[in-house]
This record gives sequence, structure tokens and C-alpha cells, in this order.
Amino acid sequence: MTIPFIDSIDAEDFSKKLQQALDQKTKPIGSLGQLEAVAIQLGMIQKSMTPTILSPQMIVFVGDHGIVKHGVSLYPQEVTWQMVQNFLSGGAAISVLARQHQMGLTVVDCGVKQNFEDHPQLLKRKIREGTRDILEEPAMTRKECDQAIQNGIDLVRNLSGNLLALGEMGIGNTSSATLLISRLMGVPIEKCTGAGTGLDSQGVIRKTEILRKALEKHPTQNPLEALACLGGYEIATMVGAILQGAAERRVILVDGFITTAAVCVAREMDSKIMGYCLFSHCSQEQAHREILSKLQVKPLLDLGLRLGEGSGAALAYPLVESAARILSEMANFESAKVSQKSI
Amino acid sequence: MTIPFIDSIDAEDFSKKLQQALDQKTKPIGSLGQLEAVAIQLGMIQKSMTPTILSPQMIVFVGDHGIVKHGVSLYPQEVTWQMVQNFLSGGAAISVLARQHQMGLTVVDCGVKQNFEDHPQLLKRKIREGTRDILEEPAMTRKECDQAIQNGIDLVRNLSGNLLALGEMGIGNTSSATLLISRLMGVPIEKCTGAGTGLDSQGVIRKTEILRKALEKHPTQNPLEALACLGGYEIATMVGAILQGAAERRVILVDGFITTAAVCVAREMDSKIMGYCLFSHCSQEQAHREILSKLQVKPLLDLGLRLGEGSGAALAYPLVESAARILSEMANFESAKVSQKSI
Repeated sequence: MTIPFIDSIDAEDFSKKLQQALDQKTKPIGSLGQLEAVAIQLGMIQKSMTPTILSPQMIVFVGDHGIVKHGVSLYPQEVTWQMVQNFLSGGAAISVLARQHQMGLTVVDCGVKQNFEDHPQLLKRKIREGTRDILEEPAMTRKECDQAIQNGIDLVRNLSGNLLALGEMGIGNTSSATLLISRLMGVPIEKCTGAGTGLDSQGVIRKTEILRKALEKHPTQNPLEALACLGGYEIATMVGAILQGAAERRVILVDGFITTAAVCVAREMDSKIMGYCLFSHCSQEQAHREILSKLQVKPLLDLGLRLGEGSGAALAYPLVESAARILSEMANFESAKVSQKSI
Repeated sequence: MTIPFIDSIDAEDFSKKLQQALDQKTKPIGSLGQLEAVAIQLGMIQKSMTPTILSPQMIVFVGDHGIVKHGVSLYPQEVTWQMVQNFLSGGAAISVLARQHQMGLTVVDCGVKQNFEDHPQLLKRKIREGTRDILEEPAMTRKECDQAIQNGIDLVRNLSGNLLALGEMGIGNTSSATLLISRLMGVPIEKCTGAGTGLDSQGVIRKTEILRKALEKHPTQNPLEALACLGGYEIATMVGAILQGAAERRVILVDGFITTAAVCVAREMDSKIMGYCLFSHCSQEQAHREILSKLQVKPLLDLGLRLGEGSGAALAYPLVESAARILSEMANFESAKVSQKSI
């Protein structure tokens, strides 16, 4: 797989052309703030002066986690498969928000501890019924991990559209995400461990101790080995989707903390993916703000969200579309016969 | 005009019912952050457990300002009427964003120094061709001010829908807004004066001195007199629209700094309007953050916008619709057969 450089020398010239076009739009220079940076990034990704979002796709990656037996989550494990049903029957937050914005919604069973009836919006890419207990052994084998990544690559190949919004669900998966982020981004585990779906401070302290043990058990610094050891079939599948999305020059709209963990892994494999990623929001999960800042990215929203499912990505999606439309649809000073600055 | 109390004793019970409904939705409690507070406010405004946004209306209030002859703005005065043409021909930022979100777009000539051809989206409510020079005399007479407010009341009466998004345009109108906010909110003029459409620091210093003279010339503490003296036909018309919108229990989506100035005036006339207002974004204009904090409100977006026209309100609009849909469309734990917290 080859991921094109978004920032080649050619691209730098193109970025200037985009900036000039934006500065000619009928508005004070820079007055659309962060939206202007998004507009330029979209132009760069699509190599187009008139970027357009077509057939946006929301993908929710779902998996179960062996670590839950140690009590790291507030909710019982069966909530994972129950929520898959809820996604598919249209009652979950992400179902409502994807419907509002007419985004395609695909739910991927990457490793749920339950089998599902067929459903047009469900992709069955189950590797195993939940990861292994990482306090005992690696969450997945390297072979399973590679297969999950390949599944992510293949499923993106078969999806239409030029924007992928990525979300996830899986009771226990803030644990895997926290471990991966701590290991790959060098953030101490106690600074990284948060409340997940709503643990109290005692719960967070217990979770931190469990996660510290998991890190000690699996000392590898290799990103792919870390992914296999610390787990998440849904995170591994997402890594493949990010790599393939970037290779196809699609816009990748990243949801919250757990999706960011998948980005951190994919970026170790090819840092060029970052040019294709937009970060939808800063979640309330501890350390997300710090990680986004380490990644030198600025999220679009800051609403105290901590739901996952891709809900933050869906909420930020219209802003991305707006940014594209600013470049593609706004008049410029000349065409609209509006006078420019007089001073 | 009677504006209903949003926070009567009855309403307090209703707010609890809304909170309970939200807590039963299939998501961790509080996990949709600020969106949940918006959902409850929408339920309260509409007195409904299933709030819905119908036929949202964007109104852009436009006027010219006598003060521009003192060089307070970077752009020449004719940009005001040229931008009206641009709004109507579909090329301005607000035209693009209103179209994206299928919001009705109405442009109101409240006092532009130019006459316009008829257009289905243009309301001619011109009081006068621009306000007077406030360094010499009041911007408008009390009679003109009352008429502008009445125009705002009447035009809302004739608009459909249950959400009003309010924006404005008028070269020089950050000056009027700054003066009103400084006077009514007790913020020193040097803390309040910002770059408007893009003045440099020397320009801001000059503008501050001009505004200081205007405040000295018109020492009145009476809100309506202050509005008449410090001006803005578009601001006065917006004040009427806010009062009428609240009286009809419509959601009022406030744009940036200048729209906030209109809210500050309307709130002096009836503080109950605040229950109906949602603040779309914190603009880059100096002091907006402080004023929002003084008003004890939390804006939805923080994207460094400083365009006006209602663009921030249009960008925030989908979040408001999402909040309504969370309450109206999401399944609850019981109906979706999803397990609740186990700890």
C-alpha cells in the first residue's frame, strides 16, 4: 500500500493556491478561523480547488475485551452486543446522528462475544469472540492482529464515498486505547487513565493499577506488537481502515479517545496518514487533550463528549462539509463586485 | 408583549422530567456533554419531551453607520450594500451555509445607504440611510429606535418556523456593538474594543479613542436611550426580533459579538429572553468571551470566527438539531433492551 504524501513540493504550491482562493472569497481575510484550515486540508486531500464531500460513510467498529473480567468498566459485557442491535435498529445516538446527516452507517463486528443475524448494515469481520485477558497473555496473536488490519483495509475498499467517519464501541475498550496511547505516545499510565463510561475516582485508581500491570506484562515498544498485545480487534480493524482511507485520499474524520488510539498506531506505520485526518472533538476522557496537542492537531468541537460510537465525528461532520462549501460555493470579491479593504 | 417565564415552578418539574428522559437514553449518563444541556433547554422552550426544529429561519439584519467617516473600519461603506447583493445572489458565506442546512434566509434592510430592487428574500425595513454620526448627535431618534424595534417584532410575526438564527452585516457595526456592550455590561471601552474585520493594533487604538469620545458624548444609562444614542438600526431591529421570538417561544440562535450586543439590550428590557437564547460561538472579537461568561452562557463553537452575517449561528445550527433529535429519536435502555450499569 502506498500512501501519497499530502505535503510534497507540488502540494506546497497547491496549498498556496488554495490559500489565495480563500483570501479572495467575500469575507475579511482569515475571518472563518479554523474552518479555513480545514478547507485547505480538504483541497489538498482531494487535489481540488473545489473540494466536495460525496457519500460520507460512518463506520462503527465493535469488539469485546478479555480485560473486562477485572472490572475496568461500569457496564456489563453484554452491552457490547446489545448496542450493536441498537445501532442497527436505529435507536442509538450514532444511528440518530448518521441519519440526520445522511451518512451511510456500517457496523463492523470485529470481535463481539455474540453472533448476529444478517443485517444490511452489519459487516461480520469477527476474528474471535473477544480478546484474551491481557494480564495473562497477549490480547490477540500477531496473525489475528494482521487479519484484523487486513479486514479494515478490505472493507474500506468496498465502501463508496470520499469521507470516512470512524467510531467504535466495545465495553472495556478505553482500557486498550489507554494502554496503546500510553505506550506509543509516552504518556505515564496514571496521566492517561480516565473514567471511561463513568467510573468514580476509586474506580479510576483501580483501573490504573490493572493497566499498569498490563504494561509491565507486555513491554514491547514495537507498534504492531503493542497493538497485538494490548489489543482491541476493533482498534486493529480501524488501523487498517485508516491506512486504506489515506491511501485512497479519503478524508478521515476521527472521533474520540479510542479512535485517536487507532490513529496513533496507524501513524507509527506511516506518518503520512496524518495529512488525511481531521479530529472532530476533544473528549472528556483524561489525556485526550494532551494527546491531540502532542499530535499537533486542533479538534473542531469541545463539548465535553465521552460517548464514542462515532458520535463526535457525526456532530463535527457538517463543519467539514461547510469548509468544503466555503471553497467551492462562495463568490469572490471580483465576481460579486464587492470592494476590498480601503486601508 | 408577554414573554413567558421559562423557569417557573412548573417548568422546574418539567426540566427534571426531561433530565430523567435523557438519563434513560442508551448512553452513559451525561456522555453527550453540553449537547444534553441544549436538549433540555429545547424541551423547556417547546414544553415538549420530543422537541423538534421546524423550518429554521436565518435572518440577517443590515444597516449603515455614520461613525464610519471617522475611519473605524477597514472596509469602505459601500461594502454594506454590495454584501446585501451578495447575500441575495447566493455567493456570501451565509448564503452558502443557510443553503447547506436548508434554513430560510431573509435579509432585512434596516438602514442601508442604498436602495435595492425587490427580491423575494429581502425585507425593506429601512428607517434611514445609515445612522447619524454619534460623535455629533444620537445615532437615531427615540422614535426611529422604537420603529426599528417594532419592525423586528412585526417581521418575526410573519416568519414561519420555531427557530430564529440571527446575524447581521454593516460596515462600522462592531463600533455600535462595542459601545452598547461597554455601557450595558460595564466593561471598560479599552477592554471591549477589538479588531472588527481586521484592524491592526494602531487601528484598534484609534478606534478605542473614537469610541471613548462617543461614550462621553452620550452618558445615558437607560438601555433604550443607549440603543438610540449609540445606534445601529440593524441592532435595534434585532432587539425587536429577539423579544418577539421569545414571546412566541421560538429558539433564538445568537451569532457573534454584534448579535450578542442586541441580546444585551433585549435582556435589559426583559431578562426572560435569556431562557430562549442559545449562543452559537465565541468569536475572536475582543471581549466576546468575557461577555458570554458574564451572561453565564456557554457557546457551542470556538473556532476563531469573526465574520458575522450569522455564519457562526449557521455553523452551530446542526448541533442544535442534533440535541433535539437526541431527546426525540434515541431509544431508551428499556425499549432497546440494553443493560444498565452493573456497578
